[in-house]
Amino acid sequence: MSYYRHHIFFCLNQRDNGQACCAQQGAQAAFDHCKAQVKAAGLAGPGGVRVNKAGCLDRCAGAPVAVVYPEGTWYTFVDTADIDEIVESHLRGGRPVERLKLAPEVGR
Amino acid sequence: MSYYRHHIFFCLNQRDNGQACCAQQGAQAAFDHCKAQVKAAGLAGPGGVRVNKAGCLDRCAGAPVAVVYPEGTWYTFVDTADIDEIVESHLRGGRPVERLKLAPEVGR
Repeated sequence: MSYYRHHIFFCLNQRDNGQACCAQQGAQAAFDHCKAQVKAAGLAGPGGVRVNKAGCLDRCAGAPVAVVYPEGTWYTFVDTADIDEIVESHLRGGRPVERLKLAPEVGR
Repeated sequence: MSYYRHHIFFCLNQRDNGQACCAQQGAQAAFDHCKAQVKAAGLAGPGGVRVNKAGCLDRCAGAPVAVVYPEGTWYTFVDTADIDEIVESHLRGGRPVERLKLAPEVGR
């Protein structure tokens, strides 16, 4: 069994060379919101949910992106309502949010 | 199937309040070494291996730590020889390194 039931990593990478990056697309706000919602819902901790910052996940064409392990579900999102849905449906309920899944071919 | 066959996250968290943290324990050097070895071995990329920076993974008592997903294998390590073994045995060969596994009860 996994130490965390769901471990979500948000790419917070910042590029300064003009290329697309998650930090330009609201990733920090999404991370902060997710972290706060998971804590408020009492889901945080071992056996539960961990919300983590990460460096570049190298799927920049879908920015902003996040990945949930151990299931390996990748998401792209627009606003805090999307994050709320990921928290409620997936991180609490165990049901991935199909409409927010990153297409398999999306890479750098 | 997972976008990356093995996705390893290194905690690079830096604490300035005197508490233990991975950054004080050589985590950055381990990350840099792992990234270079994976690239040199031709393992990097979609369908292969991704080496990522992460914020605090909240298992600080075992610092420095890293986790490999989707399998959810947690490691603690001492030097670059340990990293070489993780790269060769686990990330290339698919065989986790038992002697470097973090004990299940190790938390913050």
